[in-house]
Amino acid sequence: MNNTDSSWVRTVRLAKPTLQDNTADSDRLISALKTDLQTDAVHIDLDLIKKLPDRLRKWEYNLRCILFKDRRRWLVTGVAGVNDARTFAGLAVDLGTTKVVLRLLDLSDGRTLGESGFDNPQLVVGPDILARIHFAETAGGLERLNELIITGLNQTVRDLCRSCRLEPQDIHAVTVAGNTAMTHLLMGIDPHWIIREPYIPVVNKPGVLKAADLGIRVNDGARVFIFPNVGSYFGGDLIAGIFFANLHRQSETAILVDVGTNAEVVVGNENWLIACAGAAGPALEGGMTKMGMVAGPGVVDRIAIDPDTHEFDLHTIDGEPPKGICGSGIIDLAAALFLSEMIDIRGKFVPAACGKHLKIMDGLAHLVVVPADKSATGSELTISQADLDSLIRSKAAMYTILETITTSVGISLKELTSFFIGGTFGAFIDPSAAIAIGMLPDLSLASYKPLGNSSLGGAALALTSVDFLEEIDGIRDRITYLELNVNQEFMNRFSAAKFLPHTNASLFPSVIVWGKNRSKES
Amino acid sequence: MNNTDSSWVRTVRLAKPTLQDNTADSDRLISALKTDLQTDAVHIDLDLIKKLPDRLRKWEYNLRCILFKDRRRWLVTGVAGVNDARTFAGLAVDLGTTKVVLRLLDLSDGRTLGESGFDNPQLVVGPDILARIHFAETAGGLERLNELIITGLNQTVRDLCRSCRLEPQDIHAVTVAGNTAMTHLLMGIDPHWIIREPYIPVVNKPGVLKAADLGIRVNDGARVFIFPNVGSYFGGDLIAGIFFANLHRQSETAILVDVGTNAEVVVGNENWLIACAGAAGPALEGGMTKMGMVAGPGVVDRIAIDPDTHEFDLHTIDGEPPKGICGSGIIDLAAALFLSEMIDIRGKFVPAACGKHLKIMDGLAHLVVVPADKSATGSELTISQADLDSLIRSKAAMYTILETITTSVGISLKELTSFFIGGTFGAFIDPSAAIAIGMLPDLSLASYKPLGNSSLGGAALALTSVDFLEEIDGIRDRITYLELNVNQEFMNRFSAAKFLPHTNASLFPSVIVWGKNRSKES
Repeated sequence: MNNTDSSWVRTVRLAKPTLQDNTADSDRLISALKTDLQTDAVHIDLDLIKKLPDRLRKWEYNLRCILFKDRRRWLVTGVAGVNDARTFAGLAVDLGTTKVVLRLLDLSDGRTLGESGFDNPQLVVGPDILARIHFAETAGGLERLNELIITGLNQTVRDLCRSCRLEPQDIHAVTVAGNTAMTHLLMGIDPHWIIREPYIPVVNKPGVLKAADLGIRVNDGARVFIFPNVGSYFGGDLIAGIFFANLHRQSETAILVDVGTNAEVVVGNENWLIACAGAAGPALEGGMTKMGMVAGPGVVDRIAIDPDTHEFDLHTIDGEPPKGICGSGIIDLAAALFLSEMIDIRGKFVPAACGKHLKIMDGLAHLVVVPADKSATGSELTISQADLDSLIRSKAAMYTILETITTSVGISLKELTSFFIGGTFGAFIDPSAAIAIGMLPDLSLASYKPLGNSSLGGAALALTSVDFLEEIDGIRDRITYLELNVNQEFMNRFSAAKFLPHTNASLFPSVIVWGKNRSKES
Repeated sequence: MNNTDSSWVRTVRLAKPTLQDNTADSDRLISALKTDLQTDAVHIDLDLIKKLPDRLRKWEYNLRCILFKDRRRWLVTGVAGVNDARTFAGLAVDLGTTKVVLRLLDLSDGRTLGESGFDNPQLVVGPDILARIHFAETAGGLERLNELIITGLNQTVRDLCRSCRLEPQDIHAVTVAGNTAMTHLLMGIDPHWIIREPYIPVVNKPGVLKAADLGIRVNDGARVFIFPNVGSYFGGDLIAGIFFANLHRQSETAILVDVGTNAEVVVGNENWLIACAGAAGPALEGGMTKMGMVAGPGVVDRIAIDPDTHEFDLHTIDGEPPKGICGSGIIDLAAALFLSEMIDIRGKFVPAACGKHLKIMDGLAHLVVVPADKSATGSELTISQADLDSLIRSKAAMYTILETITTSVGISLKELTSFFIGGTFGAFIDPSAAIAIGMLPDLSLASYKPLGNSSLGGAALALTSVDFLEEIDGIRDRITYLELNVNQEFMNRFSAAKFLPHTNASLFPSVIVWGKNRSKES
């Protein structure tokens, strides 16, 4: 046999039955696999058993088995002839509240075959988890939400397979990473209690399910592994992120911050993992995620300000005329405004420095970032004092969470060797800008490691070894969940962090305001 | 908790969730069960997980769990409130080729709730396994056979439940003991190869399946345990018999003979088990099972002959006028004819002794057992020389099988301490008559232990402890299957056994022909 230990597809050559060795077909296969896999638990579904006698004889008892490992129990989910050139595909799913992304892999070597995404069809019901959970409580609501996501998945699976010249039947393994509410809805489980004290999910470790039982139309025998959650506000998407960043296997302590609909943080190493999420979310959620527009052509994603002329140097996606600013652009803008002293350490506009850029609209100060004649919309693109105040609260909340969680485990932020940033939003943040406003700690820029879509990355990585599913459930079990209490100490830290970059400037030695710098030089 | 170790129903009292202990509902239940059951593998079906949140809160986290044990993995198949008075029932099925018998039990204490049987609906397709396997090879044949048995089961389950004031939903566990072909057909598995060299079943250990996957309409979460088979000709009905007789746990060597459509034999004790079946069947099948009519009112089941007058003393079932003779009646008759010297040691009629009872019909000697005026049918009831010849072949085959299997393990028939007789036919045999004709060995009558329907008995016993399923699969693994070669040695033994009681009369010291006895006395 030419099998690697971690492969989902194994070649098995069985001794042919004789009068002296009349072991049944499926028991013969199970026995060979037990030896090959060194296990005492191998299961074959009845539907597959029914197909065995004809196929085994056609293939002269030589075959390839497509396997799945459910904790310590191996499952045979499909069989093929040894010369069958068919691809055995795996499907990784990032089940986002807003967007769902699918990646198709070759199970034999982990190679990516294709990728596709679609807006979560549950958006028609409600934009966020809260709205959907309330909808699930109405008559037929849960069934409708479940149907929406399953139908959307099946449609995109069909299209993605077609584009890769495969069929859904070629998909033998599926991994799904999503937040706790989304995975509950995928399974058709009532999410009612997720948002009610004491915030209990119905299931933490869904483990391995049959795709057919979920209504997912892939191979009849295919199994689905759903990433476990730690609680209602720390879902499988984050476990996927930890797994993808390899945080749980590193000897040096690192941090992982996921900025998505919520902000979740994990600190740890190979020995311990501490996580927190959600509770400080309101400040962050009101600002960070609703701030700026979704990235796309014409959206401003990078902003610099000339220290002498205070002219704005904008970069738009695809170089098209500017039509809005995305989150990372706003962080850049705030950093540049602060470093050029156009806003003060409280984040308030400095009229003298802003000059002609500043104007009052509806009684509120606005800074014109793009004049009307240069904008794609024909209107000015502006940022208001209220936008800035909101950003300051968000960045202060973020820093406070980071400070609180590290303090709780007795280390300082400076001790972190790696700072992983997950989430689609986080992927575009310029760490130097985020440091400049005191949103992220003043670590070396090399410490910052954007993970991109770490939820998808983790789901895809999980499909590259049969041993990973148990490892992932193990990560979940190792996490200590820290409830972030918004107490007096937290509020004190939060207040101190509401300045740029921080009340205690010594925490940010690399942040040097240009004017001050130049006054020193002169 | 007030749980016995072997119970299928366990009471669990969970700690209520708090902000400090936010383990999910299903994980909370699994964790408690892992502690209670001292296991690391507890599984809950998704359908049941969906129902947990509402029920756990309604029951204030106190509940009863209905369990099933699949090898080392525990399954929660249902939940109920602690004060729910509902019965949790188990269903034992003897899946016979001709007749299917169901017994309903209370899972909490093993008490029988009701019993019902029905003719196997597959009889419309063919009377025996061979005919059905050939039918299964026609287009749609397998599906038709499967549908017939499943529909019949579901109908009888409904009726049986109604008579016990239960509903099919109250049935949480099912055990099925049947021969290899019948269990294949129950699962919808092609039995084609069972009757073709080298006689390989598709599956030996079907293990635990979901009732819903088989189409059996009982509780949605109910599991079905299908008794394992040793091979194509040694099925789960026999494993059930061994289990029921407790043969596999006895220190002294015993034998189990099952006379049904085939004759199967197991010899063994707590250390070893040897089985054989089938190959010598033709002789037996042609005679034993087609001989006589099915027991019922008016059927002659016991016959004695007055040694002086040669008058027949008949016993009929329910004392009604005689209308036919069943198998055990024919063995009694043969024994009485032999002991009264009306047939000789070759089984041939002795005209002088038979006298007026004997007549020639269609050129063949017949013995009139019941004259026309005393029969319920108005016709004579007779036994022909051909019938007797057939009986002699059958009894010789039976004895030869018993002798061959014991010889093969180096013991003599006399060493057997217990002789279990299984099968509905076997239950009615009078051991002294069977010994008189040399069909069974000349052991003390106390050694003979009729088991009744040991297939149903084993299936029902399996439902009385969660540990039994693994024990049953273990019995299967311990059996050494002996292929009965009909070689020269076998044929020599067979020839020697074709006399009454045997060529070597010293093997049957208790069999004393009356005439010889009297001549000694006189």
